[in-house]
Amino acid sequence: MNVKEIKKMYYLVIYDIASAKRLPKILKICRKYLNWVQNSSFEGELTKTQYLSLQAELKTKINKKEDSVIFYQVRTPEVVNKIILGKEKNEISIFF
Amino acid sequence: MNVKEIKKMYYLVIYDIASAKRLPKILKICRKYLNWVQNSSFEGELTKTQYLSLQAELKTKINKKEDSVIFYQVRTPEVVNKIILGKEKNEISIFF
Repeated sequence: MNVKEIKKMYYLVIYDIASAKRLPKILKICRKYLNWVQNSSFEGELTKTQYLSLQAELKTKINKKEDSVIFYQVRTPEVVNKIILGKEKNEISIFF
Repeated sequence: MNVKEIKKMYYLVIYDIASAKRLPKILKICRKYLNWVQNSSFEGELTKTQYLSLQAELKTKINKKEDSVIFYQVRTPEVVNKIILGKEKNEISIFF
């Protein structure tokens, strides 16, 4: 069997959705691909295919003039430290 | 004159504040140190002193049992790409 290494990248995704009606749709899409971190933010590892698929799904639901979704794509998670003040809402993380 | 190089680190800060009353206080503190990105998120470069000062100020205002502030501390911003879907709410960024 020819096993190809599938390269993954690390993502932090934050969104700012202007309409309360669109919000649950965006949340649902993000949950399919990533881990919820806290209000309006997700983290996770994605292959190129998953990343493009997530983008494509989000594009069909957001209002481009009002909403904003930002992907921080990290090549090496080792250079990112995560420091939490207050309550840790989800302990699953790709950054330490 | 003895010029010391002041080392800076790059930060993405996201917060989830449970009370609408505390929210403007947190926003005001973050604005003093960082650039606003979108709803509940800030970016910027900080020296160690600024970083500790920001943390100390936030600690006096958040409710540790209900609120959450996350600092993503990035040593090398070159390994982070920023991709925006929809509206770019603020063009000032430390990641490209």
